[in-house]
Amino acid sequence: MTRTEVRIAGVDPGLYVTGYGVIREARGALELVEAGSVRTDASAPLELRLRQLHEEISAVLSALEPEVVVVEDLYTQYAHPRTAVLMGHARGVVCLAAGQCLAQVVAYPPALVKRSLTGNGNASKEQVGRMVTQLLRLAEPPKPADVTDALALALCHAVPSRRHARAARRRRSDLPPELAERLTEALNR
Amino acid sequence: MTRTEVRIAGVDPGLYVTGYGVIREARGALELVEAGSVRTDASAPLELRLRQLHEEISAVLSALEPEVVVVEDLYTQYAHPRTAVLMGHARGVVCLAAGQCLAQVVAYPPALVKRSLTGNGNASKEQVGRMVTQLLRLAEPPKPADVTDALALALCHAVPSRRHARAARRRRSDLPPELAERLTEALNR
Repeated sequence: MTRTEVRIAGVDPGLYVTGYGVIREARGALELVEAGSVRTDASAPLELRLRQLHEEISAVLSALEPEVVVVEDLYTQYAHPRTAVLMGHARGVVCLAAGQCLAQVVAYPPALVKRSLTGNGNASKEQVGRMVTQLLRLAEPPKPADVTDALALALCHAVPSRRHARAARRRRSDLPPELAERLTEALNR
Repeated sequence: MTRTEVRIAGVDPGLYVTGYGVIREARGALELVEAGSVRTDASAPLELRLRQLHEEISAVLSALEPEVVVVEDLYTQYAHPRTAVLMGHARGVVCLAAGQCLAQVVAYPPALVKRSLTGNGNASKEQVGRMVTQLLRLAEPPKPADVTDALALALCHAVPSRRHARAARRRRSDLPPELAERLTEALNR
Protein backbone atom coordinates (compact mmCIF):
# COMPACT_ATOMS: atom_id res chain seq x y z
CA MET A 1 0.00 0.00 0.00
CA THR A 2 1.40 3.38 -0.96
CA ARG A 3 0.50 6.09 1.52
CA THR A 4 0.00 9.64 0.31
CA GLU A 5 0.52 10.85 3.87
CA VAL A 6 3.58 11.06 6.10
CA ARG A 7 3.31 9.81 9.68
CA ILE A 8 5.58 11.22 12.36
CA ALA A 9 5.85 9.99 15.95
CA GLY A 10 7.21 12.12 18.78
CA VAL A 11 8.33 10.35 21.96
CA ASP A 12 9.38 11.85 25.31
CA PRO A 13 11.01 8.86 27.05
CA GLY A 14 11.14 8.40 30.80
CA LEU A 15 11.40 5.41 33.10
CA TYR A 16 8.29 6.57 35.00
CA VAL A 17 6.25 8.15 32.20
CA THR A 18 6.89 8.06 28.47
CA GLY A 19 4.70 10.37 26.41
CA TYR A 20 4.06 9.66 22.74
CA GLY A 21 2.09 11.22 19.93
CA VAL A 22 1.67 10.31 16.27
CA ILE A 23 0.60 12.93 13.72
CA ARG A 24 0.02 12.74 9.99
CA GLU A 25 0.68 15.29 7.31
CA ALA A 26 -1.32 14.97 4.12
CA ARG A 27 -1.64 17.65 1.47
CA GLY A 28 -0.08 20.22 3.86
CA ALA A 29 -2.61 19.56 6.63
CA LEU A 30 -1.49 18.29 10.04
CA GLU A 31 -3.68 15.97 12.07
CA LEU A 32 -3.43 14.01 15.31
CA VAL A 33 -3.52 10.22 14.80
CA GLU A 34 -3.04 9.02 18.38
CA ALA A 35 -1.36 10.16 21.56
CA GLY A 36 -0.91 8.73 25.02
CA SER A 37 1.58 7.71 27.66
CA VAL A 38 3.17 4.59 29.11
CA ARG A 39 3.57 4.43 32.87
CA THR A 40 5.69 1.69 34.37
CA ASP A 41 5.23 0.18 37.81
CA ALA A 42 7.78 1.96 40.04
CA SER A 43 7.89 -1.04 42.39
CA ALA A 44 8.86 -3.48 39.61
CA PRO A 45 12.52 -4.35 38.84
CA LEU A 46 14.24 -2.22 36.18
CA GLU A 47 14.34 -5.04 33.59
CA LEU A 48 10.57 -5.60 33.83
CA ARG A 49 9.82 -1.86 33.61
CA LEU A 50 11.94 -1.62 30.45
CA ARG A 51 10.19 -4.69 29.08
CA GLN A 52 6.76 -3.11 29.67
CA LEU A 53 7.88 0.16 28.04
CA HIS A 54 9.29 -1.74 25.06
CA GLU A 55 6.12 -3.80 24.61
CA GLU A 56 3.78 -0.82 24.72
CA ILE A 57 5.84 1.52 22.52
CA SER A 58 6.50 -1.31 20.02
CA ALA A 59 2.74 -1.96 19.86
CA VAL A 60 2.07 1.74 19.07
CA LEU A 61 4.81 1.91 16.41
CA SER A 62 3.78 -1.40 14.78
CA ALA A 63 0.13 -0.36 14.63
CA LEU A 64 0.59 3.23 13.41
CA GLU A 65 3.73 2.73 11.28
CA PRO A 66 5.36 6.19 11.51
CA GLU A 67 8.27 6.75 9.10
CA VAL A 68 10.09 8.85 11.68
CA VAL A 69 10.37 8.78 15.48
CA VAL A 70 11.42 12.17 16.91
CA VAL A 71 13.12 12.42 20.31
CA GLU A 72 14.87 15.21 22.20
CA ASP A 73 18.57 15.59 21.50
CA LEU A 74 20.99 14.67 24.30
CA TYR A 75 22.33 17.61 26.27
CA THR A 76 25.99 18.22 26.97
CA GLN A 77 25.33 18.87 30.65
CA TYR A 78 22.82 17.33 33.03
CA ALA A 79 21.95 18.64 36.48
CA HIS A 80 21.33 15.07 37.71
CA PRO A 81 23.58 12.67 35.75
CA ARG A 82 22.28 9.51 37.49
CA THR A 83 18.66 10.38 36.61
CA ALA A 84 19.80 11.26 33.09
CA VAL A 85 21.45 7.84 32.71
CA LEU A 86 18.19 6.17 33.82
CA MET A 87 16.31 8.30 31.26
CA GLY A 88 18.94 7.02 28.79
CA HIS A 89 17.74 3.47 29.53
CA ALA A 90 14.19 4.43 28.49
CA ARG A 91 15.43 6.43 25.48
CA GLY A 92 17.56 3.46 24.39
CA VAL A 93 14.58 1.12 24.56
CA VAL A 94 12.42 3.58 22.57
CA CYS A 95 15.15 3.98 19.90
CA LEU A 96 15.50 0.18 19.77
CA ALA A 97 11.72 -0.19 19.23
CA ALA A 98 11.96 2.37 16.41
CA GLY A 99 14.87 0.47 14.83
CA GLN A 100 12.94 -2.81 15.07
CA CYS A 101 9.95 -1.17 13.30
CA LEU A 102 12.30 0.29 10.64
CA ALA A 103 11.44 3.86 11.62
CA GLN A 104 14.21 6.45 11.43
CA VAL A 105 15.11 8.20 14.71
CA VAL A 106 15.59 11.99 14.49
CA ALA A 107 16.68 14.17 17.44
CA TYR A 108 16.16 17.91 17.93
CA PRO A 109 17.46 20.15 20.74
CA PRO A 110 14.68 21.46 23.05
CA ALA A 111 15.33 25.10 22.08
CA LEU A 112 14.85 24.29 18.38
CA VAL A 113 11.52 22.56 19.15
CA LYS A 114 10.29 25.62 21.05
CA ARG A 115 11.53 28.07 18.42
CA SER A 116 10.08 26.03 15.59
CA LEU A 117 6.61 26.03 17.19
CA THR A 118 6.44 29.46 18.82
CA GLY A 119 9.24 31.49 17.22
CA ASN A 120 10.96 31.70 20.62
CA GLY A 121 13.62 29.23 21.79
CA ASN A 122 12.86 30.09 25.42
CA ALA A 123 9.07 29.71 25.16
CA SER A 124 7.26 28.48 28.28
CA LYS A 125 5.58 25.08 28.51
CA GLU A 126 2.20 26.91 28.30
CA GLN A 127 3.16 28.68 25.05
CA VAL A 128 4.30 25.38 23.51
CA GLY A 129 1.10 23.71 24.74
CA ARG A 130 -1.04 26.43 23.11
CA MET A 131 0.76 26.00 19.75
CA VAL A 132 0.39 22.19 19.87
CA THR A 133 -3.34 22.65 20.60
CA GLN A 134 -3.73 25.20 17.80
CA LEU A 135 -1.69 23.36 15.12
CA LEU A 136 -3.58 20.10 15.71
CA ARG A 137 -6.98 21.85 16.24
CA LEU A 138 -7.51 20.24 19.65
CA ALA A 139 -10.00 21.42 22.29
CA GLU A 140 -7.24 21.79 24.93
CA PRO A 141 -3.55 20.92 25.52
CA PRO A 142 -3.10 17.13 25.85
CA LYS A 143 -2.27 15.73 29.29
CA PRO A 144 0.03 14.69 30.89
CA ALA A 145 2.66 17.26 29.87
CA ASP A 146 4.81 14.40 28.46
CA VAL A 147 2.20 13.92 25.70
CA THR A 148 2.32 17.62 24.77
CA ASP A 149 6.14 17.43 24.72
CA ALA A 150 5.99 14.37 22.46
CA LEU A 151 3.56 16.07 20.05
CA ALA A 152 5.74 19.21 20.02
CA LEU A 153 8.66 17.03 18.85
CA ALA A 154 6.58 15.48 16.06
CA LEU A 155 5.30 18.92 14.98
CA CYS A 156 8.83 20.34 14.99
CA HIS A 157 9.74 17.72 12.39
CA ALA A 158 6.62 18.47 10.34
CA VAL A 159 6.80 22.25 10.25
CA PRO A 160 10.37 23.12 9.16
CA SER A 161 9.56 23.35 5.45
CA ARG A 162 7.00 26.06 6.14
CA ARG A 163 9.22 27.69 8.75
CA HIS A 164 12.14 27.80 6.32
CA ALA A 165 9.88 29.23 3.61
CA ARG A 166 8.68 31.98 5.96
CA ALA A 167 12.25 32.74 7.04
CA ALA A 168 13.32 32.86 3.38
CA ARG A 169 10.47 35.22 2.53
CA ARG A 170 11.52 37.49 5.41
CA ARG A 171 15.11 37.46 4.16
CA ARG A 172 14.06 38.41 0.61
CA SER A 173 13.93 42.11 1.58
CA ASP A 174 17.74 41.93 1.95
CA LEU A 175 18.19 40.42 -1.53
CA PRO A 176 18.63 42.13 -4.93
CA PRO A 177 15.13 42.39 -6.55
CA GLU A 178 15.93 39.90 -9.33
CA LEU A 179 17.10 37.18 -6.90
CA ALA A 180 14.13 37.85 -4.60
CA GLU A 181 11.76 37.26 -7.52
CA ARG A 182 13.44 33.98 -8.48
CA LEU A 183 13.27 32.83 -4.84
CA THR A 184 9.54 33.70 -4.70
CA GLU A 185 8.96 31.60 -7.81
CA ALA A 186 10.97 28.69 -6.34
CA LEU A 187 9.04 28.82 -3.06
CA ASN A 188 5.67 28.89 -4.82
CA ARG A 189 6.44 25.91 -7.06
CA MET B 1 14.99 -30.01 32.90
CA THR B 2 16.26 -29.31 36.41
CA ARG B 3 19.77 -27.92 36.44
CA THR B 4 22.06 -28.71 39.36
CA GLU B 5 24.23 -25.76 38.38
CA VAL B 6 23.72 -22.00 38.58
CA ARG B 7 24.56 -19.88 35.54
CA ILE B 8 25.54 -16.25 35.97
CA ALA B 9 26.12 -13.73 33.18
CA GLY B 10 28.15 -10.55 33.63
CA VAL B 11 27.70 -7.77 31.08
CA ASP B 12 29.69 -4.55 30.65
CA PRO B 13 27.44 -2.53 28.31
CA GLY B 14 28.70 0.11 25.91
CA LEU B 15 27.44 1.53 22.64
CA TYR B 16 30.80 0.73 20.96
CA VAL B 17 31.78 -2.48 22.76
CA THR B 18 29.70 -4.60 25.13
CA GLY B 19 31.62 -7.32 26.93
CA TYR B 20 29.82 -10.38 28.27
CA GLY B 21 30.76 -13.55 30.09
CA VAL B 22 28.73 -16.47 31.38
CA ILE B 23 30.04 -18.69 34.17
CA ARG B 24 28.56 -21.69 35.94
CA GLU B 25 28.83 -22.77 39.53
CA ALA B 26 28.26 -26.44 40.26
CA ARG B 27 29.20 -28.21 43.51
CA GLY B 28 31.26 -25.20 44.57
CA ALA B 29 33.38 -25.12 41.39
CA LEU B 30 33.36 -22.12 39.06
CA GLU B 31 33.78 -22.56 35.33
CA LEU B 32 33.68 -20.37 32.22
CA VAL B 33 30.80 -21.20 29.86
CA GLU B 34 31.26 -18.54 27.19
CA ALA B 35 32.59 -15.00 26.88
CA GLY B 36 32.84 -12.48 24.11
CA SER B 37 31.96 -9.00 23.00
CA VAL B 38 29.50 -7.20 20.73
CA ARG B 39 30.85 -4.35 18.62
CA THR B 40 28.40 -2.11 16.83
CA ASP B 41 29.10 -0.24 13.61
CA ALA B 42 29.99 3.32 14.68
CA SER B 43 28.82 4.69 11.33
CA ALA B 44 25.31 3.18 11.67
CA PRO B 45 22.38 5.18 13.13
CA LEU B 46 21.80 4.82 16.89
CA GLU B 47 18.57 2.80 16.47
CA LEU B 48 20.32 0.19 14.29
CA ARG B 49 23.30 -0.07 16.63
CA LEU B 50 20.94 -0.70 19.55
CA ARG B 51 19.06 -3.25 17.45
CA GLN B 52 22.30 -5.11 16.70
CA LEU B 53 23.32 -5.07 20.38
CA HIS B 54 19.87 -6.31 21.41
CA GLU B 55 19.89 -9.13 18.85
CA GLU B 56 23.35 -10.40 19.80
CA ILE B 57 22.94 -10.17 23.58
CA SER B 58 19.45 -11.73 23.36
CA ALA B 59 20.93 -14.61 21.35
CA VAL B 60 23.58 -15.22 24.05
CA LEU B 61 21.06 -15.06 26.91
CA SER B 62 18.53 -17.29 25.11
CA ALA B 63 21.15 -19.90 24.29
CA LEU B 64 22.95 -20.01 27.66
CA GLU B 65 19.97 -19.26 29.94
CA PRO B 66 21.68 -17.56 32.90
CA GLU B 67 19.44 -17.05 35.94
CA VAL B 68 21.12 -13.74 36.74
CA VAL B 69 22.60 -10.93 34.63
CA VAL B 70 25.09 -8.84 36.60
CA VAL B 71 25.87 -5.25 35.58
CA GLU B 72 27.78 -2.38 37.17
CA ASP B 73 25.76 -0.17 39.49
CA LEU B 74 25.01 3.40 38.33
CA TYR B 75 27.30 6.04 39.80
CA THR B 76 26.09 9.21 41.45
CA GLN B 77 28.52 11.36 39.49
CA TYR B 78 29.82 11.03 35.95
CA ALA B 79 32.74 12.93 34.47
CA HIS B 80 31.07 12.93 31.02
CA PRO B 81 27.28 12.93 31.49
CA ARG B 82 26.48 12.82 27.75
CA THR B 83 28.66 9.71 27.25
CA ALA B 84 27.11 8.22 30.40
CA VAL B 85 23.60 8.75 28.98
CA LEU B 86 24.65 6.98 25.77
CA MET B 87 26.06 4.10 27.86
CA GLY B 88 22.63 4.16 29.56
CA HIS B 89 21.06 3.40 26.16
CA ALA B 90 23.19 0.25 25.85
CA ARG B 91 22.62 -0.71 29.52
CA GLY B 92 18.87 -0.25 29.04
CA VAL B 93 18.86 -2.54 26.00
CA VAL B 94 20.92 -5.18 27.89
CA CYS B 95 18.55 -5.03 30.90
CA LEU B 96 15.57 -5.28 28.51
CA ALA B 97 17.09 -8.40 26.90
CA ALA B 98 17.54 -9.88 30.40
CA GLY B 99 13.91 -9.10 31.28
CA GLN B 100 12.71 -10.69 28.04
CA CYS B 101 14.72 -13.86 28.85
CA LEU B 102 13.32 -13.85 32.43
CA ALA B 103 16.78 -13.39 33.95
CA GLN B 104 17.08 -11.24 37.06
CA VAL B 105 19.30 -8.14 36.78
CA VAL B 106 21.66 -7.53 39.73
CA ALA B 107 23.95 -4.48 40.00
CA TYR B 108 27.12 -4.08 42.07
CA PRO B 109 29.28 -0.96 42.56
CA PRO B 110 32.73 -1.23 40.90
CA ALA B 111 34.56 -1.02 44.26
CA LEU B 112 32.60 -4.00 45.61
CA VAL B 113 33.49 -6.04 42.51
CA LYS B 114 37.20 -5.26 42.98
CA ARG B 115 37.12 -5.92 46.73
CA SER B 116 35.18 -9.14 46.30
CA LEU B 117 37.75 -10.53 43.84
CA THR B 118 41.03 -9.13 45.19
CA GLY B 119 40.27 -8.00 48.74
CA ASN B 120 41.01 -4.40 47.70
CA GLY B 121 38.30 -1.96 46.51
CA ASN B 122 40.95 0.09 44.68
CA ALA B 123 42.60 -2.86 42.89
CA SER B 124 44.09 -2.16 39.45
CA LYS B 125 42.65 -3.59 36.22
CA GLU B 126 45.66 -5.94 36.11
CA GLN B 127 44.99 -7.30 39.62
CA VAL B 128 41.32 -7.91 38.75
CA GLY B 129 42.39 -9.55 35.46
CA ARG B 130 44.76 -11.90 37.33
CA MET B 131 42.02 -12.96 39.75
CA VAL B 132 39.54 -13.57 36.90
CA THR B 133 42.19 -15.70 35.15
CA GLN B 134 42.96 -17.62 38.35
CA LEU B 135 39.37 -18.20 39.52
CA LEU B 136 38.31 -19.52 36.11
CA ARG B 137 41.63 -21.39 35.52
CA LEU B 138 42.27 -19.62 32.21
CA ALA B 139 45.62 -19.46 30.39
CA GLU B 140 45.58 -15.62 30.33
CA PRO B 141 43.24 -12.67 31.04
CA PRO B 142 40.43 -12.55 28.45
CA LYS B 143 40.49 -9.73 25.87
CA PRO B 144 39.23 -7.11 25.24
CA ALA B 145 39.21 -5.63 28.77
CA ASP B 146 35.38 -5.38 28.56
CA VAL B 147 35.21 -9.20 28.67
CA THR B 148 37.38 -9.33 31.81
CA ASP B 149 35.17 -6.65 33.39
CA ALA B 150 32.05 -8.68 32.51
CA LEU B 151 33.52 -11.87 34.00
CA ALA B 152 34.59 -9.97 37.15
CA LEU B 153 30.93 -8.93 37.60
CA ALA B 154 29.71 -12.51 37.22
CA LEU B 155 32.39 -13.79 39.64
CA CYS B 156 31.50 -11.09 42.19
CA HIS B 157 27.98 -12.51 42.27
CA ALA B 158 29.29 -16.08 42.60
CA VAL B 159 31.86 -15.57 45.36
CA PRO B 160 30.09 -13.62 48.15
CA SER B 161 29.12 -16.67 50.19
CA ARG B 162 32.80 -17.68 50.52
CA ARG B 163 33.87 -14.08 51.03
CA HIS B 164 31.33 -13.62 53.82
CA ALA B 165 32.48 -16.87 55.44
CA ARG B 166 36.11 -15.70 55.35
CA ALA B 167 35.17 -12.30 56.75
CA ALA B 168 33.15 -14.01 59.51
CA ARG B 169 36.12 -16.26 60.37
CA ARG B 170 38.37 -13.19 60.60
CA ARG B 171 35.90 -11.44 62.89
CA ARG B 172 35.76 -14.47 65.24
CA SER B 173 38.92 -13.31 67.03
CA ASP B 174 36.87 -10.35 68.36
CA LEU B 175 34.12 -12.63 69.70
CA PRO B 176 33.81 -14.31 73.11
CA PRO B 177 35.31 -17.88 72.74
CA GLU B 178 31.93 -19.62 73.18
CA LEU B 179 30.27 -17.60 70.39
CA ALA B 180 33.32 -18.05 68.11
CA GLU B 181 33.04 -21.83 68.51
CA ARG B 182 29.32 -21.82 67.64
CA LEU B 183 30.05 -19.67 64.59
CA THR B 184 32.82 -22.07 63.47
CA GLU B 185 30.36 -24.97 63.74
CA ALA B 186 27.72 -23.03 61.77
CA LEU B 187 30.21 -22.15 59.01
CA ASN B 188 31.43 -25.74 58.72
CA ARG B 189 27.95 -27.21 58.44
